[in-house]
Amino acid sequence: MGTTQLESVPEPKYWHLKTVLSEALDSEFSVGEILPNERDLAARFGVARATLRQALEQLELEGRLQRRRGVGTTVAPPRVGVAVGGSEQHDWPGATGDTWQPVDCTLEVPPAAVAAALETGADRPVHTLRRSRTSNGQPVAAELLYVAEASVPDLSAIDAPSGAARARAVLRELQRLELEGRENAVELGSARADDAKELDRLPGAPVLVVTTRYFAGGRVAAISVATYRADTCRLTFGDSGGVEIHQGPERKAS
Amino acid sequence: MGTTQLESVPEPKYWHLKTVLSEALDSEFSVGEILPNERDLAARFGVARATLRQALEQLELEGRLQRRRGVGTTVAPPRVGVAVGGSEQHDWPGATGDTWQPVDCTLEVPPAAVAAALETGADRPVHTLRRSRTSNGQPVAAELLYVAEASVPDLSAIDAPSGAARARAVLRELQRLELEGRENAVELGSARADDAKELDRLPGAPVLVVTTRYFAGGRVAAISVATYRADTCRLTFGDSGGVEIHQGPERKAS
Repeated sequence: MGTTQLESVPEPKYWHLKTVLSEALDSEFSVGEILPNERDLAARFGVARATLRQALEQLELEGRLQRRRGVGTTVAPPRVGVAVGGSEQHDWPGATGDTWQPVDCTLEVPPAAVAAALETGADRPVHTLRRSRTSNGQPVAAELLYVAEASVPDLSAIDAPSGAARARAVLRELQRLELEGRENAVELGSARADDAKELDRLPGAPVLVVTTRYFAGGRVAAISVATYRADTCRLTFGDSGGVEIHQGPERKAS
Repeated sequence: MGTTQLESVPEPKYWHLKTVLSEALDSEFSVGEILPNERDLAARFGVARATLRQALEQLELEGRLQRRRGVGTTVAPPRVGVAVGGSEQHDWPGATGDTWQPVDCTLEVPPAAVAAALETGADRPVHTLRRSRTSNGQPVAAELLYVAEASVPDLSAIDAPSGAARARAVLRELQRLELEGRENAVELGSARADDAKELDRLPGAPVLVVTTRYFAGGRVAAISVATYRADTCRLTFGDSGGVEIHQGPERKAS
């Protein structure tokens, strides 16, 4: 990597170091390779360990590095593009082609914000489906899908009381409604303990939270709160109009 | 806030503390209010300062707190929903209703990933527009929009050589092409030094990076790389089919 003089740069030192490290990753390391330890790296670039650590954190944010306990810091593979919306944009969850797997279904009082959006009243339980999504065998997202009881009035109580079978029954009933539209919102969040476990992350790891509101009958019939791994995922919102997409670069342009 | 016993909890301490703090923010603090200092907070909850700091970091990730130099830690206002795509989804940048403001335009060799996607060849300069976006008077996003020279062949060289006027000329030429589709991707990133300055953040702050590929003539005619503040923004991808959206909760459901 060679030593680089970082003294006379107006940007914060860690920022410049990040750029230098990033170029070194491109030219000298391959995916999965373990980086030298922090002490050696700091010495090599003539920076304090604190500066090095800040630069490594940046690269982790950008998905270039993965830090794993007991392994060390490795060069991350390119992020995986995960379609959110896209061609199935006008379908209910659980429609043909949906890549989510139902895991469980319970009847629970939702968070206040969900109750307000569903207009169910604060103490009223709603169908709470837990679903998971994998990509290439790796868990990439965990979802809580809240369905108002009023949205699936014909759901049979004797069908399946809980579990994945119950989740499928709720989704089946949901398909009966005419979907008038949906709206996605993406924001930064930190992984809840249960999601973190499912996603193989520590609680509090940065995640991308996608909240989807499904509209039917002029109101919100269901709300999905999906938690995607921010380190490995790039969320794609497609509308390529059927144009064949020339395979672009895996890395984001920056 | 009262003292809470955190000893016998299976989750990481900082995580549980985060939940407790979050509830305290809801019930005892108002937006903009400055939190007590770290020493006082740590004492109050009977935790080490390191644990407290981890919990504060989580809350910052979730957009509940803002930490500002010289001010301290304040309770953040709810995130602002910023439309990405939505009704103007089928329009070129710069079309009527576009909320971005052109700032500058230069002819530059783009990053390798952009050149590959635009199929311009590695050393070929492209029109590089800088645009900015504000919401309620606050900067929320900074964009680099790359337009291949071949996409705007009739652009007059004598028009305006650079600056915002040049940017508008490029956008005007772009409108002549038939837009066949566009594809958005969202991922976590860290703010580049120039973007950070424009967004009033420190370099390296977490940001949401939206990469948009615009398709025309069966190829990628332009690429936008937009950097949104992750602390204050929630990106919305609309497809509500014209349904009037009942005003939901400002906070994300979690």
